[in-house]
Amino acid sequence: MTPDCWVNGEPGIRISTFDRGLHYGDGLFETLAVRLGRIRLLDHHLQRLTAGCLRLRLPPLPLDVVKDELTHAANGQPQAVLKLIVTRGSGGCGYRPSASTQTTRILTRHPCPEHPAEYIQYGIRMRVCDTRLSRNRTLAGLKHLNRLEQVLARAEWTEADNIQEGLMMDEEGSVIEGIMTNVFVRLSHGVLATPSLRLAGVAGVMRRHILECAQQTGIPIRIASLSLTEIMQAAEIFVCNSVIGVWPVSAIGHWKFTVGPMTRRAQTWATQC
Amino acid sequence: MTPDCWVNGEPGIRISTFDRGLHYGDGLFETLAVRLGRIRLLDHHLQRLTAGCLRLRLPPLPLDVVKDELTHAANGQPQAVLKLIVTRGSGGCGYRPSASTQTTRILTRHPCPEHPAEYIQYGIRMRVCDTRLSRNRTLAGLKHLNRLEQVLARAEWTEADNIQEGLMMDEEGSVIEGIMTNVFVRLSHGVLATPSLRLAGVAGVMRRHILECAQQTGIPIRIASLSLTEIMQAAEIFVCNSVIGVWPVSAIGHWKFTVGPMTRRAQTWATQC
Repeated sequence: MTPDCWVNGEPGIRISTFDRGLHYGDGLFETLAVRLGRIRLLDHHLQRLTAGCLRLRLPPLPLDVVKDELTHAANGQPQAVLKLIVTRGSGGCGYRPSASTQTTRILTRHPCPEHPAEYIQYGIRMRVCDTRLSRNRTLAGLKHLNRLEQVLARAEWTEADNIQEGLMMDEEGSVIEGIMTNVFVRLSHGVLATPSLRLAGVAGVMRRHILECAQQTGIPIRIASLSLTEIMQAAEIFVCNSVIGVWPVSAIGHWKFTVGPMTRRAQTWATQC
Repeated sequence: MTPDCWVNGEPGIRISTFDRGLHYGDGLFETLAVRLGRIRLLDHHLQRLTAGCLRLRLPPLPLDVVKDELTHAANGQPQAVLKLIVTRGSGGCGYRPSASTQTTRILTRHPCPEHPAEYIQYGIRMRVCDTRLSRNRTLAGLKHLNRLEQVLARAEWTEADNIQEGLMMDEEGSVIEGIMTNVFVRLSHGVLATPSLRLAGVAGVMRRHILECAQQTGIPIRIASLSLTEIMQAAEIFVCNSVIGVWPVSAIGHWKFTVGPMTRRAQTWATQC
């Protein structure tokens, strides 16, 4: 079944072949979870989108319109996923953006992906991806449309491997994130740690929410470069994004982990947003 | 005027909003120069495209069909530019590519960009871009659709600055290429040098052609990491791509260069293809 789709607020499933989103990945996206007609962490999503537009020097978005469109698409949906793509639109000369470009908004509504309940209860299995994330301080943190690294990483295994997510390092060997998630670990001394995204990675809204909850609860936080060894020695590890919430990690390759109290706490936070 | 455009061989200027080229930049492109109905370096372009499909694990292209479409679009055109985009098409689940995906081909024909004759004669002015290229050995060399770095670099100056091209370094400070060109320098001892593209950059077909010509002529070649200091101390410097051919560089920021014999030779080679 084709998902519902709107282009610049009008129903439609076609865009111009000249759109810079296609030519250069010149744009941003957000993936939003809908529960009982309500969008989780909507303000976090809109803040990240606004910050991304600033960084890419995209024209400022009509935020009221965007919010209305998202709310309308969510309305009456028991469970759904919305994906909003914002591109610099058509125009400009080659790579050079035109000052007068009008952005293109593409909003799609999908059924919520169905995952086995065991993922939440007992955790998922990850692999360490061969594909590396490149470092770029200008683009780090943004949820932009240049996602070939994730595509290649996700193509490294098939469904038969019983692996649910891939762990990605950057070109220098620092652990950054999952392919579609952010990563947290509880270190042995009780610190909640997550990789710094200063040089690579996507600053997920669920990551932000969990960090905010941890801070409010007084849990010590470390945001820093994390090596694979540090990850493997973690007391517990979990991944998160706005659609799945929080999944414990039970294994990375041959390393096994047990699901711990910090993960359960983060799962509670994930449902409270 | 809207350029001519074909999607999968049929006239059209629309593609699906679900195309992975838009969502992830999951694809490749080629920009081809047409002179008197003939495509320059067509085989080089098709070879790079084929190699790119292999690297990205795109389904093999129907090369005969692609060649026919390109040749047909070039036929009768005194001067034109063709741009061919190949994406992984629609489908798959999130980042994961589907095995059964059909690629999308988007072919556009544009008028040849008009540049002042001085560029060829006296050279162009470049700036050193603040935007850096990220290192990624999996993607290096490919002409893929993840081009945000080039977009941001090209947005660093306006037409009023009288700058024609930007020089891009990678995150570690090695000089890699121009925004839309490859870079060559003649070192003081007569060696023709161009940056290695093992970690970043696009392996241009004109770069390949020039390297082949230089090799056949017995000119010593160096393909290696090049620092900005080495570039600034070069006896001469030029940039190239398949559309502009070869442009001498007369200035990078405040550094001045004179147009030398190696550049003139490369310009001759560029017209012989």
